[in-house]
Amino acid sequence: MSRKQMVRPGGRSARVQASVHAAVRELLSEVGRDALTVPLVAERAGVTPSTIYRRWGDLQELLSDVAVEHLRPDTSPEDHGDLRSDLTAWAEQFLDEMASSSGRAYIRDALLGDPDGGNAGQCSAYAAEQIDVILARAGDRGEHAPDVETTMDRLVAPLMYRILFRPAGLGAAYARRLVTEFLGAGGGGRPVTG
Amino acid sequence: MSRKQMVRPGGRSARVQASVHAAVRELLSEVGRDALTVPLVAERAGVTPSTIYRRWGDLQELLSDVAVEHLRPDTSPEDHGDLRSDLTAWAEQFLDEMASSSGRAYIRDALLGDPDGGNAGQCSAYAAEQIDVILARAGDRGEHAPDVETTMDRLVAPLMYRILFRPAGLGAAYARRLVTEFLGAGGGGRPVTG
Repeated sequence: MSRKQMVRPGGRSARVQASVHAAVRELLSEVGRDALTVPLVAERAGVTPSTIYRRWGDLQELLSDVAVEHLRPDTSPEDHGDLRSDLTAWAEQFLDEMASSSGRAYIRDALLGDPDGGNAGQCSAYAAEQIDVILARAGDRGEHAPDVETTMDRLVAPLMYRILFRPAGLGAAYARRLVTEFLGAGGGGRPVTG
Repeated sequence: MSRKQMVRPGGRSARVQASVHAAVRELLSEVGRDALTVPLVAERAGVTPSTIYRRWGDLQELLSDVAVEHLRPDTSPEDHGDLRSDLTAWAEQFLDEMASSSGRAYIRDALLGDPDGGNAGQCSAYAAEQIDVILARAGDRGEHAPDVETTMDRLVAPLMYRILFRPAGLGAAYARRLVTEFLGAGGGGRPVTG
């Protein structure tokens, strides 16, 4: 075997993950979730089924990993110039993505094939990181900003709870109302001085 | 066939449901979730597997129905004399039950085998009904009471969100803090007059 053919385990491992994840995403849109099987994914990804079973345990855990990867934000929250606008835009977009039928399926997958809770925790960490960016930016502007955990309780939790359990009447107006009730009608987000 | 042997469909249907649900609960504690199969449940319940497939579709949907039944509160919230005490006691008990390993398993089951969202909605409706009893009682006492949906957002949603996604540090102190932040340090729950 030439030197070039010897790949680091990490390299091969990463390639297997990428091709298996891609196969799942393709097949989800082509054949749908109910028709998805480990042998089907393996064939599309060019690996053996046992590679998938060894690494992911079962289809549910694989779907959970793919879901978490899908739910990872790929950009920083947009800067709209003040805390209220930033939180409102973020909450509207979060609701829009998560409450879509594919968003809900991904959240359920992330929660489901996740015996140790790590994937659910990762979803929540993604939201917390985005909130943290928004709050830090507000602090830099001299705005009075709440802390991350309180923002999770007042904004992220009710959005996610209603998406999962109580979706009737959910929409951008609800997201805006949460922000208004959280920051106060004219309350939060004002400059600390001036 | 004698008159006595002719049972109404509703009666038989209810008996099948009761015996299948009981079989699931027994087997969950005896063999665990991973070893549970439809034929095993059918054998214990004294029905055919096809009876279960016809009625529930698959094991996941059956587990979801059993979970919702388990999550139904069997008593009214206790009356501790004022809104703050009632909400605090309810939130502590809700967290205690739902955050237990069996509680979390039931919530996940309720969410998962639930393609149309009806079972998740039912879980949320149970919580809303209990909150409604507490708030109506506060109103009867002449206390200023918030509305049910706001209470869902401020109390139930963060509890459930953290149970599912962000369980680190969850405990009775967190439940009490949510109530305090919601009602105000000495704010809500005071008599409207006097």
